[in-house]
Amino acid sequence: MITHISPVGAMDLLSQLEVDRLKATASSDLYRLYRNCSLAVLNSGSHTDNSKELLEKNKSFDVNVMRRERGIKLELMNPPEHAFVDGRIIRGIQEHMFAVLRDIVYVNMHVKQRNDINLTSAPHITNFVFSVLRNAKTVRSGEDPNIVVCWGGHSINPVEYQYTREVGHELGLRELNICTGCGPGAMEGPMKGAAIGHAKQRYPQSRFIGLTEPSIIAAEPPNPIVNELVILPDIEKRLEAFVRAGHGIVIFPGGAGTAEELLYILGILMHPENASQPMPLVLTGPKESEPYFRTLDSFIQDTLGEAATKHYEIIIDDPAKVARVMKAAMPLIKEQRLATGDAYSYNWALKIPPEFQLPFEPTHESMASLDLHMNQRPEHLAAHLRRAFSGIVAGNVKEEGIREIERKGPFQINGDIALMKRMDKLLRSFVEQQRMKLPGTSYVPCYEIITNSGNGK
Amino acid sequence: MITHISPVGAMDLLSQLEVDRLKATASSDLYRLYRNCSLAVLNSGSHTDNSKELLEKNKSFDVNVMRRERGIKLELMNPPEHAFVDGRIIRGIQEHMFAVLRDIVYVNMHVKQRNDINLTSAPHITNFVFSVLRNAKTVRSGEDPNIVVCWGGHSINPVEYQYTREVGHELGLRELNICTGCGPGAMEGPMKGAAIGHAKQRYPQSRFIGLTEPSIIAAEPPNPIVNELVILPDIEKRLEAFVRAGHGIVIFPGGAGTAEELLYILGILMHPENASQPMPLVLTGPKESEPYFRTLDSFIQDTLGEAATKHYEIIIDDPAKVARVMKAAMPLIKEQRLATGDAYSYNWALKIPPEFQLPFEPTHESMASLDLHMNQRPEHLAAHLRRAFSGIVAGNVKEEGIREIERKGPFQINGDIALMKRMDKLLRSFVEQQRMKLPGTSYVPCYEIITNSGNGK
Amino acid sequence: MITHISPVGAMDLLSQLEVDRLKATASSDLYRLYRNCSLAVLNSGSHTDNSKELLEKNKSFDVNVMRRERGIKLELMNPPEHAFVDGRIIRGIQEHMFAVLRDIVYVNMHVKQRNDINLTSAPHITNFVFSVLRNAKTVRSGEDPNIVVCWGGHSINPVEYQYTREVGHELGLRELNICTGCGPGAMEGPMKGAAIGHAKQRYPQSRFIGLTEPSIIAAEPPNPIVNELVILPDIEKRLEAFVRAGHGIVIFPGGAGTAEELLYILGILMHPENASQPMPLVLTGPKESEPYFRTLDSFIQDTLGEAATKHYEIIIDDPAKVARVMKAAMPLIKEQRLATGDAYSYNWALKIPPEFQLPFEPTHESMASLDLHMNQRPEHLAAHLRRAFSGIVAGNVKEEGIREIERKGPFQINGDIALMKRMDKLLRSFVEQQRMKLPGTSYVPCYEIITNSGNGK
Amino acid sequence: MITHISPVGAMDLLSQLEVDRLKATASSDLYRLYRNCSLAVLNSGSHTDNSKELLEKNKSFDVNVMRRERGIKLELMNPPEHAFVDGRIIRGIQEHMFAVLRDIVYVNMHVKQRNDINLTSAPHITNFVFSVLRNAKTVRSGEDPNIVVCWGGHSINPVEYQYTREVGHELGLRELNICTGCGPGAMEGPMKGAAIGHAKQRYPQSRFIGLTEPSIIAAEPPNPIVNELVILPDIEKRLEAFVRAGHGIVIFPGGAGTAEELLYILGILMHPENASQPMPLVLTGPKESEPYFRTLDSFIQDTLGEAATKHYEIIIDDPAKVARVMKAAMPLIKEQRLATGDAYSYNWALKIPPEFQLPFEPTHESMASLDLHMNQRPEHLAAHLRRAFSGIVAGNVKEEGIREIERKGPFQINGDIALMKRMDKLLRSFVEQQRMKLPGTSYVPCYEIITNSGNGK
Repeated sequence: MITHISPVGAMDLLSQLEVDRLKATASSDLYRLYRNCSLAVLNSGSHTDNSKELLEKNKSFDVNVMRRERGIKLELMNPPEHAFVDGRIIRGIQEHMFAVLRDIVYVNMHVKQRNDINLTSAPHITNFVFSVLRNAKTVRSGEDPNIVVCWGGHSINPVEYQYTREVGHELGLRELNICTGCGPGAMEGPMKGAAIGHAKQRYPQSRFIGLTEPSIIAAEPPNPIVNELVILPDIEKRLEAFVRAGHGIVIFPGGAGTAEELLYILGILMHPENASQPMPLVLTGPKESEPYFRTLDSFIQDTLGEAATKHYEIIIDDPAKVARVMKAAMPLIKEQRLATGDAYSYNWALKIPPEFQLPFEPTHESMASLDLHMNQRPEHLAAHLRRAFSGIVAGNVKEEGIREIERKGPFQINGDIALMKRMDKLLRSFVEQQRMKLPGTSYVPCYEIITNSGNGK
Repeated sequence: MITHISPVGAMDLLSQLEVDRLKATASSDLYRLYRNCSLAVLNSGSHTDNSKELLEKNKSFDVNVMRRERGIKLELMNPPEHAFVDGRIIRGIQEHMFAVLRDIVYVNMHVKQRNDINLTSAPHITNFVFSVLRNAKTVRSGEDPNIVVCWGGHSINPVEYQYTREVGHELGLRELNICTGCGPGAMEGPMKGAAIGHAKQRYPQSRFIGLTEPSIIAAEPPNPIVNELVILPDIEKRLEAFVRAGHGIVIFPGGAGTAEELLYILGILMHPENASQPMPLVLTGPKESEPYFRTLDSFIQDTLGEAATKHYEIIIDDPAKVARVMKAAMPLIKEQRLATGDAYSYNWALKIPPEFQLPFEPTHESMASLDLHMNQRPEHLAAHLRRAFSGIVAGNVKEEGIREIERKGPFQINGDIALMKRMDKLLRSFVEQQRMKLPGTSYVPCYEIITNSGNGK
Repeated sequence: MITHISPVGAMDLLSQLEVDRLKATASSDLYRLYRNCSLAVLNSGSHTDNSKELLEKNKSFDVNVMRRERGIKLELMNPPEHAFVDGRIIRGIQEHMFAVLRDIVYVNMHVKQRNDINLTSAPHITNFVFSVLRNAKTVRSGEDPNIVVCWGGHSINPVEYQYTREVGHELGLRELNICTGCGPGAMEGPMKGAAIGHAKQRYPQSRFIGLTEPSIIAAEPPNPIVNELVILPDIEKRLEAFVRAGHGIVIFPGGAGTAEELLYILGILMHPENASQPMPLVLTGPKESEPYFRTLDSFIQDTLGEAATKHYEIIIDDPAKVARVMKAAMPLIKEQRLATGDAYSYNWALKIPPEFQLPFEPTHESMASLDLHMNQRPEHLAAHLRRAFSGIVAGNVKEEGIREIERKGPFQINGDIALMKRMDKLLRSFVEQQRMKLPGTSYVPCYEIITNSGNGK
Repeated sequence: MITHISPVGAMDLLSQLEVDRLKATASSDLYRLYRNCSLAVLNSGSHTDNSKELLEKNKSFDVNVMRRERGIKLELMNPPEHAFVDGRIIRGIQEHMFAVLRDIVYVNMHVKQRNDINLTSAPHITNFVFSVLRNAKTVRSGEDPNIVVCWGGHSINPVEYQYTREVGHELGLRELNICTGCGPGAMEGPMKGAAIGHAKQRYPQSRFIGLTEPSIIAAEPPNPIVNELVILPDIEKRLEAFVRAGHGIVIFPGGAGTAEELLYILGILMHPENASQPMPLVLTGPKESEPYFRTLDSFIQDTLGEAATKHYEIIIDDPAKVARVMKAAMPLIKEQRLATGDAYSYNWALKIPPEFQLPFEPTHESMASLDLHMNQRPEHLAAHLRRAFSGIVAGNVKEEGIREIERKGPFQINGDIALMKRMDKLLRSFVEQQRMKLPGTSYVPCYEIITNSGNGK
């Protein structure tokens, strides 16, 4: 089956040179990445979080960039059926297809032809993230702060899922917009809830922003309700996009990815230069999830210390309160941005230390050599712990990670014995609660926590 | 607690004479009706279908029309709390409050001052229904046929509710709009589903039309997602509004009200003058509800005959198919309207026989004297059966009906013995399936079917 | 030549009863009026101000209201050619055609079927004028005061015309909107100037309101740039619409009609109840027109007294200053409306004494019996003088008036000898300056001022 | 006097790096150019076409790019007063200020940081012109062909000016948009006329595109009615922008610049590869200007030959006909673009030979060495003649040109003696008709045509 789709959004006016280069680029090294992300987007609504599985199931899928009158078209070979309604592609998915083209191929192509972008320099990274978001029209002028980032697991239970919808509903009733990692579970519920809340308030500018990255998109395909999809090149730039574009953060229950996100934001908020940043951070879930948050809270307290816990509030079973906390922060954020001359739509002033900003490549070597000891400043420990969880996410659901684990066995994670034990306990609880992978598959850990004293100091 | 709310929509530009008359009218006989409907609207989201109960619980509620700079304001005394978010009325409910004012007071006031409206004349009724819908901006020019009427019970089980959402989702993905009786259950699910479907298709003109009437609104308060609320004066005008403004009809499981609606539309579609009307009619539910539809189907077959069953299609457990049937009919409807010179937004050509158009007042007398015999034309029998079910709805959930039953005991319904037995069986199944009232209350029938031969002919 | 045109604006959704009545009404007594106004609208851009001439030249023109699918169409027989561009009617003129249908036929039809409108009662007249403007969507909520009424002659010289454009340009640069009598000359120039001013300011909501009446529309056909055309039933209601819907008034040079307008507004502003009304009134023209205004000023001073002159400011040759005066008044008007609880879009609080509000029918009798004596309150004198000039306008350009004069000779106007002399002098200056009729025709006065002492007191 | 203005349009979301570079660039070499163009824009409406004079009169004017919260502001020192209304900058001029910043500084800055732009390559030039227009949002997708380019003199007489308005009016009535060189005279009249025509047709998307270049903008400051201002880097790219973005061309009377434009388009249309390009080209003026066109026509016939005259039509005194010719071509253009797969908004397929595309720098040397002989292909001759007239324009009104002439005396133009005589005659007629400079200044030619046989062949 072959289908052609026309551009919507940013890609509808290209010069002839750009079309030529796009075709050329899309047939190059980058092509595999581009094709896989396109497949992931088309696969929205399917029920797997295994990138490898998805790719193997759709070997016959292909996508071509074609030069056509007035620009380009995409030719799809054997696309997954459920992206179509009565033979017509769902408009939301069509937009996502061109978001992929824009962010994978076009951005890449432009960056290569610039002399002035150096992606190992901190200000350049921050400016680059801005450029990608601006190119996607996700940073805009003239809008008041109103974006709530919702983090949490792609694999949550029905009670938790319903709870994320209710929080979304209350946020929507307060005319707040939602930004998530754009997969299923806690990334989808808040948007659906907010859509209903916005409808009740006749709020016409619903923004459902999904920020993803090439290696995760297959495991967490964007729901078509996402009306602004942006693919950042890697997890660190994606996290930076979340915290600079968002105005408040809600964390729902989740697994290793959620732990990574919490450690990331804590590492940043604990930085002295960010002392005056009014960014509300709420951990929340239904009554049934209270133990989950108590475990997480203890872990933070035991590792990063009491001070770290000042940066968040745990709210159990009270969606309206979560929404009120977020809503109440917005005028303060506006005021602070005005006072410091910062933009409403992009938090330039937030200090992100380099250890959070520079990419971490999880390999057996890099995972084994993480500095997981208590005798360092808590922000640094947070940075290393963040990387540890990041590696586990890769081993769980990312194509490259899964292949690595298949080849070389689980990652070996070691460090202070006490720390290792705490980490082990936390991860075990994730496994028991089926937070690592979608239910229905039995989870084989991709890591081993070295809890014997062999390498303790 | 006293709150003031400002007009949105139709009521924002009134002349001084109109404001004066509105104030005068709103303090008159009509006032009680107006106040109760306002209360019902504010009560949206509460969980009762007992109008009487609602009214008794909110005795301290009051509403005043106040003359203010540039028009009017409403003053609310002790309004139900859940209509507000952080002290601000939900915009959807605010709109509904002024829809009530518009349709109860303003329409009434204008009708009284016209010499040219005679509500016992068939064409005048049809024109009046048009005027009310036009005044509410629900009939519009320039839109293609796309309105699907969804009928079904306010009290349905969770599996059925989820199914109504899925049908709504599929309708929404096909860019169809939804019109319902605007209460909970099967009246709410399709709208919520369609809202998500519309979001996925980036369909910007979502219409969620709720048609209600003063005596039912308290039992079936409109969900705030309804973005066009119209209050017709009585059930017959409401039913006429459904079938003239809608382009296709989906019937989900329900109780007496749903039976009334099915009999109404069958009585009309069986009329020879409507032979060429392309109005799709689908009865649908999840696998679990199949017996329900088989029972209903048998009842129709046994009472109105095989011919009546030609007018509908039963689709079990296939939301996409339901939506495809509706979508496929739209171009035919457009074509037929063009061919006959009829409006897209109001089916002037549909013949509604007077026995379906003129109001039926359910009293013990009128209920006892219904002509429920088999030896008449099936359309006529449909008309009388429609009235019987209409009366049962009144006795179940309408304030006036409940009071009547309390005073004089259940309605006595009699007729052909075979017919009575079939009716009894159908109603019993409704009771067993908890379709008559919201679960949690034990149902005491408001009627007695006389199945002994005493009055058989 | 036969052409059909479709409704735009208000007339696109009619009930079947309304279409039937419209057809019936449009074939009745009212028909001649309706047909003639339609012809006038189509005649826009032609160069005659003689209604009778226009009608005689287009005897073969006819218009029919036709019932069509979804409403009505108009059938035009032998319409003037210049209403069309390449066979397609100019959209502005198409809108005007349906404004005529709406205001002549539809309004008339509705008023007749109301029990509650009594057009001899002052509040009823004021409410009726409001209803007509609201029905035309010319009163709106949510807009700040910004409407400048421009009065002045249809027959002005090129220097004056250019000046009216410049004033319009300056008003437009200040984002003010224009309301005029919608004919040529001083009624057209300000709109054209403002259109350019608005374009320079990227002001997107240009309003060019034309208020006219059936008996004048043929002599002063609306320019298609008018984007809100309203036909009031008579000159008094038209004048009331000007002063209630407008926020400031600019008077350019003109003839008898302009004198009528000045006397009208002065009579109102001099009323004690209007003492706190902040309505700016500016008389303005180019350097060359200074003598004109000096003459007018003297006439006012000599007849209504020094006090009357306080209500206006004469600005010579300074378009920017005129615009600044108007602009500066808008916040004051807003403030006063807020303070008194009045609407921004309709000045309910302005007192219009009955002698200005009730229709004056100029006949030889009524003209002869005007009370033109100095020994009365100046407002009363203003009212009688207003009528005198109103009659002269009728005799000059209105069909009925022209026929009357043809039949019975000029109107006889008499009163205090001194007053008569002043009036005679003023009128002579109008004649000399070719302000009574378009240049190219020699003007024969339709009146005689009795300046001998015969009837002096 | 110091004023700050905020960005509108494209420049409202800049990254911190971009702001830094903008500030840096704007203080560099480019600054003088930037400042002078800004001054020209602010000077809109003044009455001089002498760039040098303008600059000398406003020596105290200055403009700074300032970094501010959320982007940039412009600081203006001693800006010309008439850019402001009551102290507020006219919105159209404000937009123009940021168009200057965008096209002079931002485009320049970006081009420098790209490895992939080579402005001596023909396809790169064409892509670059596209990029500049796209960046200004002047090429857009989704619009049918409707842009009429109007060329003609900045110095035309009142009868001609009125005629350009009338042509604009007729174009506007046919819902065509206007693109000009954006100065006064024939560049302004059509826009003003079209604005009124659009208003009559309620055409809401009026586009008044002004294409200019840094060296001409001061002599031909854009009228604020221009709602899309684009500054191309030089005359050749500006001409390319005209012919690729426009769909039809109207030439009004003018001087050397107009001759340049006519030669440019003829040189292109005569190219064999453009044989199937349906681009209507009309030369038009009022009755009084007929001799002008006869002279021009003879000149073309005598120099480029009979064949050249096939490419244009001369229409005298018939604005409606001009508009009909343009309107009639639009469907053909649409069809041809569809057939060849070309964009509606940018004519990629039009062949522009390199001699028309590469910049010509008019110096005494380059002017003296133009190849002005008859024994070459007419397109080549057209190219050289185009350059000759281009040089004369520079000597007349461009700052650099005026200074050169002051220093070294008039340009020496030589070639075939017969050709020189024809050219001399044409130029003399321009001088006599005051087409070289605005009236009121006596014109001293900036060139000498060598008509003696010294260098004839």
